[in-house]
Amino acid sequence: MINRQVLIIKMALDPWNTQISRADKLFHALPDEQLKEEVATGRNSGVYLLGHLTAVHDALFPLLGLGEKLYPRLENIFIKNADKSGIEKPPVSELRNCWTRVNNKLSQHFNQFTFEEWFQKHASVSDEDFAKEPHRNKLNVVLNRTNHLMYHLGQLAFLKK
Amino acid sequence: MINRQVLIIKMALDPWNTQISRADKLFHALPDEQLKEEVATGRNSGVYLLGHLTAVHDALFPLLGLGEKLYPRLENIFIKNADKSGIEKPPVSELRNCWTRVNNKLSQHFNQFTFEEWFQKHASVSDEDFAKEPHRNKLNVVLNRTNHLMYHLGQLAFLKK
Repeated sequence: MINRQVLIIKMALDPWNTQISRADKLFHALPDEQLKEEVATGRNSGVYLLGHLTAVHDALFPLLGLGEKLYPRLENIFIKNADKSGIEKPPVSELRNCWTRVNNKLSQHFNQFTFEEWFQKHASVSDEDFAKEPHRNKLNVVLNRTNHLMYHLGQLAFLKK
Repeated sequence: MINRQVLIIKMALDPWNTQISRADKLFHALPDEQLKEEVATGRNSGVYLLGHLTAVHDALFPLLGLGEKLYPRLENIFIKNADKSGIEKPPVSELRNCWTRVNNKLSQHFNQFTFEEWFQKHASVSDEDFAKEPHRNKLNVVLNRTNHLMYHLGQLAFLKK
């Protein structure tokens, strides 16, 4: 049964790691000027999506009980507000570093979770609700955030010429 | 342990079902003429992506040992060839029906798989490889196809005005 447990965690973490690497490669391949373009006419810019994904992933630290966010100010700029909000964004080079640092640190934590820890509740669900809905666990958060990443990767792909 | 098994399957199937419903709603909300438009300038049309997703999901029947594809001719039009291949596409109304029928039938099968069946190998991996890579099982296929669906849903969202 231990092997089955390892397998289940691998089935959730492999796609996360694969798609983070895929996003890394895409961001590296896009010069700043290209990343600043809208992914489609009138839609979010690549820079906004980079900041949005970074902010959403940064929120995983408190959500999964791994400590505080590294860059809490990104939430207001890239989650609570839209691309064209007029709020000043950090320089692209800084956002690129935030993206890398957040995902690297998450990866270190993910490799240390035990099987049982993955099935513990995340911070946004109450004990009472978790008793009724035990699928709202930490592993489920990774599956959902992988889906979220894929959604925006499909859009970011349009920045490639 | 039975509860944990139910939970694990739920964690994989809930996102699949949720995103299929989300795609359903989007396709229903888009009139044929709007669905025929490119999702972004020079990119795939909504109709191509509808056909592509239908063909990819239809391929799950043989891949998961559930019988033959319902619409095998879609593979050539929507997987092996690109949108602008010049190959004649089926009418949109027909594609909409194929999409619904494929996903409904898959759903019926998915509800009948046992936990152990989900961890059996899929049809594209050899016994030898599966012994070394047991994550290449049927449940993993559903996780991967959910990611694939998300990727294109992010693009299809651009058809909404």
